[in-house]
Amino acid sequence: MLGNCIENVRKSVPLVHNITNYVTVNDVANVLLACGGSPIMSDEPEDVKEITSICQGLNINIGTLNKRTIEGMFAAGARANELGHVTLLDPVGAGASGLRTNTAVELMEKVRFDVIRGNISEVKTLAQGSGTTKGVDADVADAVTEENLEEGIAFAKAFAKKAGCIVAITGAIDLVSDGASCYIIRNGRPEMGKITGTGCQLSGMMTAFLAANPEQKLEAAAAAVCTMGLAGEIGWGYMQKGDGNATYRNRIIDAIYNMDKETLEKGAKYEIR
Amino acid sequence: MLGNCIENVRKSVPLVHNITNYVTVNDVANVLLACGGSPIMSDEPEDVKEITSICQGLNINIGTLNKRTIEGMFAAGARANELGHVTLLDPVGAGASGLRTNTAVELMEKVRFDVIRGNISEVKTLAQGSGTTKGVDADVADAVTEENLEEGIAFAKAFAKKAGCIVAITGAIDLVSDGASCYIIRNGRPEMGKITGTGCQLSGMMTAFLAANPEQKLEAAAAAVCTMGLAGEIGWGYMQKGDGNATYRNRIIDAIYNMDKETLEKGAKYEIR
Amino acid sequence: MLGNCIENVRKSVPLVHNITNYVTVNDVANVLLACGGSPIMSDEPEDVKEITSICQGLNINIGTLNKRTIEGMFAAGARANELGHVTLLDPVGAGASGLRTNTAVELMEKVRFDVIRGNISEVKTLAQGSGTTKGVDADVADAVTEENLEEGIAFAKAFAKKAGCIVAITGAIDLVSDGASCYIIRNGRPEMGKITGTGCQLSGMMTAFLAANPEQKLEAAAAAVCTMGLAGEIGWGYMQKGDGNATYRNRIIDAIYNMDKETLEKGAKYEIR
Repeated sequence: MLGNCIENVRKSVPLVHNITNYVTVNDVANVLLACGGSPIMSDEPEDVKEITSICQGLNINIGTLNKRTIEGMFAAGARANELGHVTLLDPVGAGASGLRTNTAVELMEKVRFDVIRGNISEVKTLAQGSGTTKGVDADVADAVTEENLEEGIAFAKAFAKKAGCIVAITGAIDLVSDGASCYIIRNGRPEMGKITGTGCQLSGMMTAFLAANPEQKLEAAAAAVCTMGLAGEIGWGYMQKGDGNATYRNRIIDAIYNMDKETLEKGAKYEIR
Repeated sequence: MLGNCIENVRKSVPLVHNITNYVTVNDVANVLLACGGSPIMSDEPEDVKEITSICQGLNINIGTLNKRTIEGMFAAGARANELGHVTLLDPVGAGASGLRTNTAVELMEKVRFDVIRGNISEVKTLAQGSGTTKGVDADVADAVTEENLEEGIAFAKAFAKKAGCIVAITGAIDLVSDGASCYIIRNGRPEMGKITGTGCQLSGMMTAFLAANPEQKLEAAAAAVCTMGLAGEIGWGYMQKGDGNATYRNRIIDAIYNMDKETLEKGAKYEIR
Repeated sequence: MLGNCIENVRKSVPLVHNITNYVTVNDVANVLLACGGSPIMSDEPEDVKEITSICQGLNINIGTLNKRTIEGMFAAGARANELGHVTLLDPVGAGASGLRTNTAVELMEKVRFDVIRGNISEVKTLAQGSGTTKGVDADVADAVTEENLEEGIAFAKAFAKKAGCIVAITGAIDLVSDGASCYIIRNGRPEMGKITGTGCQLSGMMTAFLAANPEQKLEAAAAAVCTMGLAGEIGWGYMQKGDGNATYRNRIIDAIYNMDKETLEKGAKYEIR
């Protein structure tokens, strides 16, 4: 089933509008191309409405945000909502600064997102809300492990229900929930944490997966997570003596480029609760 | 003949000022170094005049433009014109939004460019003009093929004549015309389209080629197109099992790094009409 | 001794705040991860104070500066100074434009830096001061060579003494001085100059090295320089037929990823005068 999701990306070649940080933007673009989508980047408030109009999905990533690009995020989000496009929020660094936290919280309030994807710390920050809004109970640990898995699942479901969207919490174990059920995904390798932007890359790719699979968004989000993690495993298999994180970065994108339905079906490690 | 053009880049090491998008800027810099040039980036209006003054060429790419950088484009363009520097316009996304179309059209009106390089869709947008200006007939297909080649050549020549500069339309078949004659170039591979920014890279490199070959600009532009396409072919020859678009990106830049006069002469596939 | 410095980075995993140019920012992030540190990027004036507060070091690189990010540099620098964090200035392009020169000079005046790292031309520009301030004698050649080494060392020491910080001048021969003594480092390869941003990468890594070795900052700065140069030598050893500057870029970051205490101790080529 998950395999169909990537096949649909390759068939429909969704154009994804990214307002994303300048640190990892090139990798986001190449990962979108690798998985079968097509990227376009634009963050100027005057430019984003028209650009997002010709796309099928919008990926908002708040890393290296500034006041001008924040304005662009709200403008693009509003337009994408009007057009019923797929929307994703990657709250990079929420919790690390007031500007990031407030921007992410306000985006959640004013833009309807199909998915929020972040690490547990960022997602907890959003779950706690802006202070005025009462958030969900985010008294979960700072890493999802086999030991605290039930707690993590309960949190993911509760927040997804409250936020009214899919919540994807990525880490050593990934959780993807729409409030009703939760995918628990165990693909990936710890060395992926030594590459900048694997999370940003996943957010871009996930937007394409949802745009190409509008009837099965939860499954599409889970399929994107499995694709990224499995690519990390496959890419690692090509690593040779002397290779490090720079080569590994390329190997992962290469593995996404070569990913097909069968490989994904066979390699995806997940359960649903 | 084309081989001399890259040799001249390696001999004169032209410094190229790039106002370019943050998606592919790193690759543009590395391609400029690979071909023998030297890159410098600056987009702040207060900074660009002095920076462009110490360069030999100016590459303006409107991807991820914003109001501040647009101001920088006009300021740098004016200064480069005063100094007689080589100038290139890459109208990324012209036609996709009013801001991009209008910026590109206004740049064409206020800055004298030596080359406009884009895909057929972007170039058609510029050819149609700003609405007030009557453009050339841009009723050509959205891809240059063997079937509609004559039509494409006629369009390239007509627009080059009207714009008063070299026009380079890149795609499966590339056309480079100064209005009088037209290079038809058949280097490259379709897989290059799965890498972000090969067009941006070409624009940076082409600026260096023209700066190093001021007496034969049309030939220099064609040589840059052949170098990029041939590098795509050579790089592909090094691809191994498991490689994908990330590795291919590196292989192409590597092939430019290793390109010499003889290789380019032997591998360039072009005719002139 | 130098080997301990990288070991300390891997043990303490310093978080480094980078306000750096968008050309090489991705490589800076991956190099920081490769050496054992952790990167975060933020340049918005409203965001930088909180971001830098959670870090251990601040790396300010003025390439692709603009008025907004300049404001961010001063705000972050002030906060980092309040908190006693390690601070580094990379004056990219100082001397090439008034905005860059003045920004670098004003940063030196208003922010207390632990290190200034640049090429000889940039450092000479800073040494000459803002015009109102009398600088040190910067009548040294534009490249540090074996022939003019004594002169270069004297200049590095004099400027370090005057600036009250470590000065790292990198080139074919690297000089790192705190005013009292001077490391002369002969690691590296000339081909590193064909990769964009090896200097920016070094600045990011050096900030992590100092943050992890607060009791031996001079040695830490020298260790970072040796690590970069040695990685350039090791990476070159893996180059194969057809490889060029794109692959070499990855090979160098990979070599940093694999660098350990013993390799660094054995491969570092330096003397102290």
